[in-house]
Amino acid sequence: MRNIKLTIAYDGTDYHGWQHQPGMATIQGQVSQAAERLFGRAVQINGASRTDAGVHALGQVANFRIDTPVPTENMPRALSEILPDDIAVTDAAEVGENFDAISSAKRKIYRYTIFTGKSKPVLCHRTCLHRPFELDTGQIAAAAKDLIGEHDFKSFASAGDQRADSIREIYRLDVDRRKEFIYIEVEGNGFLYNMVRNIVGTLIEIGRGHWGPERIAEILAARDRSKAGPTAAAKGLCLVKIFYE
Amino acid sequence: MRNIKLTIAYDGTDYHGWQHQPGMATIQGQVSQAAERLFGRAVQINGASRTDAGVHALGQVANFRIDTPVPTENMPRALSEILPDDIAVTDAAEVGENFDAISSAKRKIYRYTIFTGKSKPVLCHRTCLHRPFELDTGQIAAAAKDLIGEHDFKSFASAGDQRADSIREIYRLDVDRRKEFIYIEVEGNGFLYNMVRNIVGTLIEIGRGHWGPERIAEILAARDRSKAGPTAAAKGLCLVKIFYE
Repeated sequence: MRNIKLTIAYDGTDYHGWQHQPGMATIQGQVSQAAERLFGRAVQINGASRTDAGVHALGQVANFRIDTPVPTENMPRALSEILPDDIAVTDAAEVGENFDAISSAKRKIYRYTIFTGKSKPVLCHRTCLHRPFELDTGQIAAAAKDLIGEHDFKSFASAGDQRADSIREIYRLDVDRRKEFIYIEVEGNGFLYNMVRNIVGTLIEIGRGHWGPERIAEILAARDRSKAGPTAAAKGLCLVKIFYE
Repeated sequence: MRNIKLTIAYDGTDYHGWQHQPGMATIQGQVSQAAERLFGRAVQINGASRTDAGVHALGQVANFRIDTPVPTENMPRALSEILPDDIAVTDAAEVGENFDAISSAKRKIYRYTIFTGKSKPVLCHRTCLHRPFELDTGQIAAAAKDLIGEHDFKSFASAGDQRADSIREIYRLDVDRRKEFIYIEVEGNGFLYNMVRNIVGTLIEIGRGHWGPERIAEILAARDRSKAGPTAAAKGLCLVKIFYE
């Protein structure tokens, strides 16, 4: 049995998230169907990250085990041709038998995109959040500094996170403005449920001037979701990359 | 009666083009409905360019006549809030009574976007054409030079163009490569039916090396659609701007 690692990109707008749900269009469901069509039998696709409905990916990772005459290097193109226009397999590699897309993951990068122009961003409305007002990226960057490092991120975890341990490490949190777009890119060793979207919702409150950057330390210390800002919409979030050893 | 000029942007993917068609979702239909809801009565929206199904716009222009207490400067926001996420009114201005969006237009800019990367461009699959092979932009630019100026573009007009006069002037035709994207931007005093898409389809043949750049002069001289390349897909085309006096 070969253990195959796939890298998958998608526009999540028209899907009910990664995770298979009976009777619902999901990314996992589409990839499983494409694999079944290519290999002629059902395949169990194990995805690294259960992205929510509307969240996008450039670097989702999944693995599956198979015996097949199909060469690994042909899989990206063959699967992508079967998949709809909004899902692509961008890479396939044979990995060691112990590789598991979830438990072997060491670091992840997410990017959140905000469009601050006055008019609705019609040509990218599926992949960015529209906030048609001035956001002070200096204040956002100042606040971001206090999120870097190892912290208890319980205040930034939405209800539904089952994990007992809410300590995570953020390695970097970059805020870039290009014309009317603001990109918030965050790299960490793991993320709690809705953690990036809750961080972004909080940074938007700070960028608008509703709160000062010093609010971050207070939110972290409180370990209380109600102290942080609202959950930013799913459409602005993209899983960019997952790192393995 | 005020004569109002609107600037309209849209992602054309989910519409059967600009022009109203009974029982079909069209841009003109959506804008007319939004105007009827805002003003409380039916409004005749006169669009400058009948973009085809799947073609996008950042600067479509339309005009309509109305007596209303709604200030002109409030119309972009009010109409955009009623319109779906993929259509926006980006500007409104009161113009002279003789202004007509179609007949007053002097120049137009179209942009065509090609993605040449190996994997499907899932995050922008609605707004670019995917051609996963090398295109020689030097050859494309060399060919583009012969299209600039006043020519009889009959060879680049698809069947269905009713206009007897096929002489048009192209002021510039720029080819830009940014990473894996190629942008072809063309500015002219008017365009025949499918003219930009037929030019792009021809330039792709030249970029692939199927034809040399000298082919352009032969195609123009032939005044025969069958001599030019195929019509490039609608999804890559965007009406960027229309100029008036």
